[in-house]
Amino acid sequence: MVEPATATQAFAPAVPLLKDELDIVIPTIRNLDFLEMWRPFFEPYHLIIVQDGDPSKTIKVPAGFDYELYNRNDINRILGPKASCISFKDSACRCFGYMVSKKKYIFTIDDDCFVAKDPSGKAINALEQHIKNLLSPSTPFFFNTLYDPFRKGADFVRGYPFSLREGVPTAISHGLWLNIPDYDAPTQLVKPLERNTRHVDAVLTIPKGTLFPMCGMNLAFDRELIGPAMYFGLMGDGQPIGRYDDMWAGWCTKVICDHLGLGVKTGLPYIYHSKASNPFVNLRKEYKGIFWQEEIIPFFQQAVLPKDCTTVQKCYIELAKQVKEKLSKVDPYFDKLAEAMVTWIEAWDELNPTGASLRNGKAA
Amino acid sequence: MVEPATATQAFAPAVPLLKDELDIVIPTIRNLDFLEMWRPFFEPYHLIIVQDGDPSKTIKVPAGFDYELYNRNDINRILGPKASCISFKDSACRCFGYMVSKKKYIFTIDDDCFVAKDPSGKAINALEQHIKNLLSPSTPFFFNTLYDPFRKGADFVRGYPFSLREGVPTAISHGLWLNIPDYDAPTQLVKPLERNTRHVDAVLTIPKGTLFPMCGMNLAFDRELIGPAMYFGLMGDGQPIGRYDDMWAGWCTKVICDHLGLGVKTGLPYIYHSKASNPFVNLRKEYKGIFWQEEIIPFFQQAVLPKDCTTVQKCYIELAKQVKEKLSKVDPYFDKLAEAMVTWIEAWDELNPTGASLRNGKAA
Repeated sequence: MVEPATATQAFAPAVPLLKDELDIVIPTIRNLDFLEMWRPFFEPYHLIIVQDGDPSKTIKVPAGFDYELYNRNDINRILGPKASCISFKDSACRCFGYMVSKKKYIFTIDDDCFVAKDPSGKAINALEQHIKNLLSPSTPFFFNTLYDPFRKGADFVRGYPFSLREGVPTAISHGLWLNIPDYDAPTQLVKPLERNTRHVDAVLTIPKGTLFPMCGMNLAFDRELIGPAMYFGLMGDGQPIGRYDDMWAGWCTKVICDHLGLGVKTGLPYIYHSKASNPFVNLRKEYKGIFWQEEIIPFFQQAVLPKDCTTVQKCYIELAKQVKEKLSKVDPYFDKLAEAMVTWIEAWDELNPTGASLRNGKAA
Repeated sequence: MVEPATATQAFAPAVPLLKDELDIVIPTIRNLDFLEMWRPFFEPYHLIIVQDGDPSKTIKVPAGFDYELYNRNDINRILGPKASCISFKDSACRCFGYMVSKKKYIFTIDDDCFVAKDPSGKAINALEQHIKNLLSPSTPFFFNTLYDPFRKGADFVRGYPFSLREGVPTAISHGLWLNIPDYDAPTQLVKPLERNTRHVDAVLTIPKGTLFPMCGMNLAFDRELIGPAMYFGLMGDGQPIGRYDDMWAGWCTKVICDHLGLGVKTGLPYIYHSKASNPFVNLRKEYKGIFWQEEIIPFFQQAVLPKDCTTVQKCYIELAKQVKEKLSKVDPYFDKLAEAMVTWIEAWDELNPTGASLRNGKAA
C-alpha cells in the first residue's frame, strides 16, 4: 500500500515518480513560456503538446524539455477521416494527446496554470501529488470522514466497514485551482473579483453514483484504466458549444468508473490559475450548455450500463448508443457527438492495438 | 441566503447565534470541568446534561451555566415503561436530551472534547461553525469541487447545474476531531500513537445515496427536520454491543434525509479530542458490531422508503419494520432494537405533542 506524503513534504525523490510511465499533455495556441516555472517538476517527463489553432504558427518550447508536438496537419495525417472526432480551435483537442501517448499515465495542464504555494509558502509539485493520488486506492462505496484514508496521518474511522478498506484502483485524480476559480460565465460576470485563496488540505474519493464537474485544467488519469473514455467531445470551430469538453469527459468517465468499480479522487493538488478567460466570450460558448446540462446530467445520473460491458471501450460504445437514443431530442448536436464518440473509439483502438487499454477493473 | 464566515473569522456577534433556539446536550459520568474551556462559547446557551451511570452520584457543573440535568431516575420517571428505549451506562443515553429539548437545534458534545485551534492559532468556536453549517443549504445531488458553495469566497463551479444551486435544507452538521481521531479498537491497537494534526478547511455535503460513519462526539442537527430519527439505539448495560450508537443514528438519519430531500454536512468545525478510550474495552464493546456492520451497511444502502413516508416519524417506523424483517436473522438483538425504535417514536411524540417535529422536507 502506498502511503502518500503530505503536500508540504519535501519533493526530492532520487528518481522522479513514474518518470517513464507518464506523459504530460498540454493543449496550446502560444509559446510555452509557462513551462519555465514548472521546470524543476516537469523536466524529467515527456511532453505531448497539441497545438489547437492555426497549424502554420510555430509554438516555441523552452530548451531542455523532451517533447513531441502535433498540429492540425499532424492530426489529419495520423487519423485520416477519423480526425473529424478531434476538436479544432479548442483546447478539447488535447485528448488527441491521450490517444497517441504510449504511457500508462497522463497528466494534463493548461498553459495559464502556474506553480501554486501551500499555506507554508512551499511550491506545490502538482504532478507528484497527482501521482500519489493515482497510486493509492479510492474508496467510492462509503464516505470516510477523515478524507483519503491512505494519506500519511489518516486512516479509516470507526464504523468504516472492514470489507471495504482495501479500496479500488484509482483511475482519475482531479486537482484544484488557487487564484482564479473555475467558474462559468454567469458566475464570472456576477463575481468578477472573486479569487480562491482557500487551500483545503484534502484528497477525497467522489462516491459511487455521484457526478461532479470535472475540470481539465489540472487533471491526471490512468490511461490503461480509463483512457478510452477520456474523450473531450466536439467543441470549438464549427460546433454550437464550448467549455463543456472536460465536463463531457467527466460525466462519461464517472459513469464508467462507477460501473467498472474504479475510483475518482478530487482535491489536492492545487495549481495557480493566472488569468480569468473573457466572461463574454465564455457566455457565448457556454449558453447552450447551460440549459442542455439540465437534461444531460439527469441522463448520466440515470444511465445504466449492462453487465457485459466489461471494458472501457464497450462501456463507451454503449454510452454513445444511449446518447444517440436519449439526447438527440435535446439537439441534433448530440447525434453528431454520439457518432464522434464511436469514431474516437475506432481511432483509439487503431493507435492502441495491443491490450494496453484492456486491463480494466471488473464490472460492478 | 446565509453566507457563513470562514473558520478563522472573529467570533463577536453582539447576540450569540440562535441563543434561544439551540440546546447543548452533554452525556456524562463526571464533573463537567471541561465546560470551563468552552465558557466563552457555551455560556449564553442552555445545557441539557444526561447522566449516564449511577444516579446517586452528583455531577458538578461549573457556576454560571444555565442547565437542566437528568439522571436515570428522572428518565424512568418521565418516560415510565418507555424508558426501556434509553440506554443505561452508555453515552447513547444522550438522545434522551434530544427528546426533552424544546428547541429547534441541538449541539451535542462529549465531555473529553476541548477547544481546538485553527492553523493560525485561533480558538475554534465549534458551535458557531455548526450553526453556520445548519443555516446554509446543502447540495446532495451533485458534487461541488470547491466544497461548500455557500461559504465566503466559494461558489458553484463551472458545470454545476443551475437548477440545483438553491440547495436543500441542512438537517445535520457533523464536526471532526484534532488530536485523537475517532478510530475503532483494531485501528487504535495497531496505531496507538496516531494523532490527527490535519486541519482541513472544508465543509461538504455528503452526497445523496452515500452513507458515512457519523460520530456523536461533535454533532449538531435540526430537531424539527430530523430529531425523531436521531435515536442512539440500545447500547451499554445489558446490551451485546457498544460504540455503535452514533453509527446507528447516522445510518438511519442519512437514509431518511436522502428520502426527504434534506442535507448532511461534514467537515468543520474541529474540536480537540483529548483522551483515547481504552482499546481493549472498546474491542469488547465493538467486536459484534465489526462483523454485524458488514450486513447492516448493505441493508441501509439498499433500504427504500415508500413515498407515503412523508414525515420523519413515518420514515422511522418504516425503517424499524425493515430492521425487524431483514436484520433479525443477523442477531435477535435487532428484534429488540426494532421494538425500541418504535418505543422511541412513541416517547418522542408523547413529549413533543404539537407539530414541532412535523415540519419536514418533502419526500424524494
